[in-house]
Amino acid sequence: MRLARLGPAGAERPAVVADDGSYLDLSGITGDIDGAFLAGDGVERARAALGGLPRLDVPAGTRIGPPVAGIGKVVCIGQNYAKHARESGAEPPTEPIIFLKAADTVVGPDDDVRIPKDSVKTDWEVELAIVIGRRARYLENPGQANDCIAGYAVSNDVSERAFQLERLGQWDKGKNCETFNPLGPWLVTPDSVDVPALRLRSWVNGEARQDEVAADMIFGVEHLVWYVSQFMVLHPGDVINTGTPAGVALGLPGQPYLRAGDVMEMEIAGLGRQRQTLTAHTVE
Amino acid sequence: MRLARLGPAGAERPAVVADDGSYLDLSGITGDIDGAFLAGDGVERARAALGGLPRLDVPAGTRIGPPVAGIGKVVCIGQNYAKHARESGAEPPTEPIIFLKAADTVVGPDDDVRIPKDSVKTDWEVELAIVIGRRARYLENPGQANDCIAGYAVSNDVSERAFQLERLGQWDKGKNCETFNPLGPWLVTPDSVDVPALRLRSWVNGEARQDEVAADMIFGVEHLVWYVSQFMVLHPGDVINTGTPAGVALGLPGQPYLRAGDVMEMEIAGLGRQRQTLTAHTVE
Repeated sequence: MRLARLGPAGAERPAVVADDGSYLDLSGITGDIDGAFLAGDGVERARAALGGLPRLDVPAGTRIGPPVAGIGKVVCIGQNYAKHARESGAEPPTEPIIFLKAADTVVGPDDDVRIPKDSVKTDWEVELAIVIGRRARYLENPGQANDCIAGYAVSNDVSERAFQLERLGQWDKGKNCETFNPLGPWLVTPDSVDVPALRLRSWVNGEARQDEVAADMIFGVEHLVWYVSQFMVLHPGDVINTGTPAGVALGLPGQPYLRAGDVMEMEIAGLGRQRQTLTAHTVE
Repeated sequence: MRLARLGPAGAERPAVVADDGSYLDLSGITGDIDGAFLAGDGVERARAALGGLPRLDVPAGTRIGPPVAGIGKVVCIGQNYAKHARESGAEPPTEPIIFLKAADTVVGPDDDVRIPKDSVKTDWEVELAIVIGRRARYLENPGQANDCIAGYAVSNDVSERAFQLERLGQWDKGKNCETFNPLGPWLVTPDSVDVPALRLRSWVNGEARQDEVAADMIFGVEHLVWYVSQFMVLHPGDVINTGTPAGVALGLPGQPYLRAGDVMEMEIAGLGRQRQTLTAHTVE
């Protein structure tokens, strides 16, 4: 099942995406698609109600929001594809690298992404996102992880490489700029997903940039949920960005970083496609 | 003015701390002390109502919660006291080091702190916390920072040094364990605070550990709010941990890391005192 949230930022309506691409209104079942909905029997209630859900009238141009509301934290995994680790100048890691992204960086899949003030190295990163549906705390083994996964989504872990790597200290300076985490369009429940077969691709201005399958991940989704749960508690509505394949600007000849007016497209077959226009930062 | 939240976790009542240490009930003015309260005219309304606020009956043993609800993110500043940078094996930084702590690590000032599973290097860090009251985004200069500061609080940036420094990658693995950020007891408004004169002290099992004044910070609070706002948007209800003085276990002879049963006390004169007992982790 594919879940989505439609409408202006902060006022999205919950919906199910029907097989024909039309939307069914979930607002009779839940006020929103959030951690409480996912931790309860929300998905089961939505599934049971499917036949009777009213169509949602979605005028052309309706904004798609991130498919989860009230995200607590975004846990990111670094260098989880060997070719990307190498293009970043690092050896593939021997255990997962973890860093955090604030949830307030999350925007809809087609929202504009702002080039930060004084940025010269804004970069793209298509990633498979795990959405947590049940608390994960000191899981005993990766086999327990699937019970904690509500579903999967496309994520763009936008990064400013000069802020991340040249401004002293930790990576966080280059990961938390406003609008730096487009998420969606859909939250797809695990029953519809064959994770290793997922093909992650990205384009900039129509030119192909990244293209690998999730099977190339050094640490798979079950390992990651188990591993992260040893260091922090994962709560329903938390998100894990599982790392990006090779083909980001940092690793390409000439380092073609993003400029205002560029268009990023991120796709994972079965999970949907994003399209963001880069805009110059504004001081409001 | 000193604000506090009293009661069981998740069901705290907002209060003003009177000069005599008794509590006045704020729940007629606001449902909670959160970003919306701080961003609106909440503090002014509380101040205007002071004379007419009813006493809050606080039975002995009532829990004190963190003084802010609905925290979005905790931004942490690393190595912001020269002696602490050196005891950590680093030179004092030439610009602020930023990392993030998830808001779900925040607990009350006297709540138990759990030693994580497989931890051998759990450490304390008394810090001055800034609570954001107004959005800070690309501030033009540090002089604009004060308008964005709702107040100050005591913070304990608990850290697991083996997770932080010996497990590959970024510091975040050692910073986001559950219960790792006691905050409070009070949110103290800036009119009551002379920041450089604030004396930060910590004790473990009654033995003095840290003792410096905020004037020893390499980067002061206004500089930090301005600086952070160049990389991410600070929202009302966000918190900045401004770094810890020398005297943590990592830098002490014999590295006396925390064990279950130990007691940490953290104090900033004028901002109050915390007391946490360390407990063994449990698997629930």
